[in-house]
Amino acid sequence: MSTDLSKFIRNKAFLDKVVTAEEAATWIEDGMTLGMSGFTLFGEPKLFPKALAERGKKEKFKIDLFTGASMGPAADQSMAEADIINLRVPYQGNPVQRKKINAGEIFYIDQHLSHVAESIRQGTYPSLDYAIIEAAAITEDGDIIPTGSVGNSPIFLDTAKHVIIELNISAPPEYEGMHDIYMQSAAGENTREAIPIFEVSKRIGTPGMKVDSAKVRGIIISSEPDIPSPLFEPNAETQQIADNLLSFLGEEVKAGRLTESLAPLQSGVGSVANAVLNGMKTSGFKDIVVASEVLQDGVFDLIDAGVVKFAAGTALSLSKKRVESLGKDLAKYKDKIVFRPQEISNHPEVIRRLGIISFNTALEVDIYGNVNSTHVGGTHMMNGIGGSGDFARNARITIFVTQSTAKDGKISAIVPFVAHVDHTNHDVDVIITEQGYADLRGLAPTQAAERIIENCMHPDYKQQARDYLAAAKERGGQTPHVLEKAFSWHTNLAEKGTMLIK
Amino acid sequence: MSTDLSKFIRNKAFLDKVVTAEEAATWIEDGMTLGMSGFTLFGEPKLFPKALAERGKKEKFKIDLFTGASMGPAADQSMAEADIINLRVPYQGNPVQRKKINAGEIFYIDQHLSHVAESIRQGTYPSLDYAIIEAAAITEDGDIIPTGSVGNSPIFLDTAKHVIIELNISAPPEYEGMHDIYMQSAAGENTREAIPIFEVSKRIGTPGMKVDSAKVRGIIISSEPDIPSPLFEPNAETQQIADNLLSFLGEEVKAGRLTESLAPLQSGVGSVANAVLNGMKTSGFKDIVVASEVLQDGVFDLIDAGVVKFAAGTALSLSKKRVESLGKDLAKYKDKIVFRPQEISNHPEVIRRLGIISFNTALEVDIYGNVNSTHVGGTHMMNGIGGSGDFARNARITIFVTQSTAKDGKISAIVPFVAHVDHTNHDVDVIITEQGYADLRGLAPTQAAERIIENCMHPDYKQQARDYLAAAKERGGQTPHVLEKAFSWHTNLAEKGTMLIK
Repeated sequence: MSTDLSKFIRNKAFLDKVVTAEEAATWIEDGMTLGMSGFTLFGEPKLFPKALAERGKKEKFKIDLFTGASMGPAADQSMAEADIINLRVPYQGNPVQRKKINAGEIFYIDQHLSHVAESIRQGTYPSLDYAIIEAAAITEDGDIIPTGSVGNSPIFLDTAKHVIIELNISAPPEYEGMHDIYMQSAAGENTREAIPIFEVSKRIGTPGMKVDSAKVRGIIISSEPDIPSPLFEPNAETQQIADNLLSFLGEEVKAGRLTESLAPLQSGVGSVANAVLNGMKTSGFKDIVVASEVLQDGVFDLIDAGVVKFAAGTALSLSKKRVESLGKDLAKYKDKIVFRPQEISNHPEVIRRLGIISFNTALEVDIYGNVNSTHVGGTHMMNGIGGSGDFARNARITIFVTQSTAKDGKISAIVPFVAHVDHTNHDVDVIITEQGYADLRGLAPTQAAERIIENCMHPDYKQQARDYLAAAKERGGQTPHVLEKAFSWHTNLAEKGTMLIK
Repeated sequence: MSTDLSKFIRNKAFLDKVVTAEEAATWIEDGMTLGMSGFTLFGEPKLFPKALAERGKKEKFKIDLFTGASMGPAADQSMAEADIINLRVPYQGNPVQRKKINAGEIFYIDQHLSHVAESIRQGTYPSLDYAIIEAAAITEDGDIIPTGSVGNSPIFLDTAKHVIIELNISAPPEYEGMHDIYMQSAAGENTREAIPIFEVSKRIGTPGMKVDSAKVRGIIISSEPDIPSPLFEPNAETQQIADNLLSFLGEEVKAGRLTESLAPLQSGVGSVANAVLNGMKTSGFKDIVVASEVLQDGVFDLIDAGVVKFAAGTALSLSKKRVESLGKDLAKYKDKIVFRPQEISNHPEVIRRLGIISFNTALEVDIYGNVNSTHVGGTHMMNGIGGSGDFARNARITIFVTQSTAKDGKISAIVPFVAHVDHTNHDVDVIITEQGYADLRGLAPTQAAERIIENCMHPDYKQQARDYLAAAKERGGQTPHVLEKAFSWHTNLAEKGTMLIK
């Protein structure tokens, strides 16, 4: 390789550690626990996991794999295809891996993203044998500069026995200085300080991640490009959801509970959330601060539109178009974006202190406001809870958005009883669909049910839901149900292909 | 009244405000919102609510009632009997009121106890017309000294248009100095400081609660005694649950994850939790700090036994014996106990910083570790979620305890699918019954299910659960279920009086 590596590896102690991915992959033994950087496909090592997967095709071994969040085709997919993953923690989104998880071939722990570092720190999980971390550079001081995500990398570097760096020399040099690395000390009396975030844009940590150079066993040189996420274009329905969200926020401003700069905003991952953000471009709100987990296209669009003045998160998740122009665009966003560890971006202390407004996408909502974010049909994992619980539980206003129906109307996203509960109605303030919004704050369960049915359900399902609620109320209770029919919409779908019961 | 009131009302501006409860009760108008002190029957006004209830027997009016938590016979019960409550927030436990809630005659919002003050501060609820607060004294500076609970009283005093003090001249004078009143400012960027609790016993606030004297419309003089809670004596089963909890904690110490002083401990409200605490007397653990919500007999017993060195909470909940001796006992506990507002005792920032170990009682648990804390049969409210979610969601280790069966074995407390979810399996680390404990940390759902069934279920139900899980696994998924049979144990109970399916 003719590149002058000393530009990227600026500390001499690291220069002689360069290895190939194939060699580094031979260091992994059966049963080892690996922590990899990577979050919503950004900042993940790409050569190493592929090499490890190649080795897995010839040799029988399994690893337990921890990451920040979801990984792409080179990582999660190639390793899942090679059948080398025993346990996957804490989030994933790859179709091949998902299939094996749902077939019981890969164990998967779907954990709140802010809790992973704490679990590692407290020794709840086995300690990591290797951390494999993508980097944009290694500084003069031997600090590791991440690329497009921080995720759990600081705790992985801190606790792993050995470290492998995958140095990506094609990463934009502007990444350096965009991270704000802050580590918590142990929990306990007089052991942990308050997290000093009082203003989202004020830095509290360092640009790079500390690592004991003696632990770094190898540096793999990569020039793999960042991986885009498919994001569908906003359509009439997502625009209507955005409009409904904007009306709700507008009413809050009118009532004097919010100002036109709102409150620090968190938006979930995915096409609907992204489209909703996009729909805020002409909202009239201004000087918005984003305090989120993942920064998608929508956030960049809002910065461009002058609506968002600063954004903090732990990772990027961008469309093909944004990925392709990232190298040339990053300079202009450099003083408007900061990346923090996911333990900090998603920390209840910070979320509650800042009074964040949170909106995330629901897979399924029930008439009482309980939310299923993860399990299709109540049993099959889609991706994972991610950070939605971190934000939903502690936000000033917790909003869940969803289209009211799916599969050409055969599925109602609003059902009598969600077949899996990720967020209980205690944590859900507002439900928004393209039909309207239901503000559940200050409502008892039966009042909430009426509001959700009337404001948010698709007209095709309203009467069916009213009938269920009426029958349930006959039996009484704070949260009336007809238990033997609570999942009848789901079973009708399984048997007859639709939730419409004829 | 011949008592020298100037001993209790030490600020002259308040001395001429003395009124009868009956007169104060006439100030309340139909549709008003009232905030009353009171938490687990301690520190609640007793004369005022009774007088208001009496008025309600002759006149038609309704109020919305906010408290700290549950109130006793003079308050919740008399007002529920008089049918003057429209809406009740955020917790209750009175049988008469419960019946009306489940009949749909009283609206009830069952809210996380740490969130109520925040909701009021943000204007989510209508502002309070009156705060009615029990006090042990009014200081020279006009501060209100609470009695046996703090709860939400500081935010009620701060935001209510008018204030009525129910001064209890029979309250032990030792209460003064035992409270630590700290108020949060508004959430937002650069508006709220970090909560400065780093050591449970270090005070961060003031002994009394601030109130604008101009808002105080009346002072009712009371000498009503504190109200005891029924607490059943520990029995063989609760002792076995305690022993299982102690084995679990012992293993954590052996593994080096805890020391013999453990970590700050929160224990739930109720007989089982109390009995479990009691069972820790001869545990060998020492210098334990309690950082809880409610301090029950068990905490006092552990202080007496020299096992607990300090305890913080927001309220007392004591048996008849302890209530009767409180006046003479309180002096000896004065430097070992502190009461804080429930927003602070239950605050995620504090819980997570201190790394609290939390144990609470479950009504029902499912094979995947989801917990129902509130709804009998999934529909009928028992008491409420209380602070269990505040602690469960943020604790270092979250434990739920329950006897494995109820009603002479006709009900299994462990079921395929809980009929109401208050805590999702993301937030539940350990399940303990008299049969044993299941440590779910680091387990995927199907692994967790096997461990819960084998370690915690009553033998009479094990095979029935194994059969359900096996049938569910045939259908696949991350969290396998046979949805049409998920509530079959519940419907069998409703139809045939037992969850045992023959």
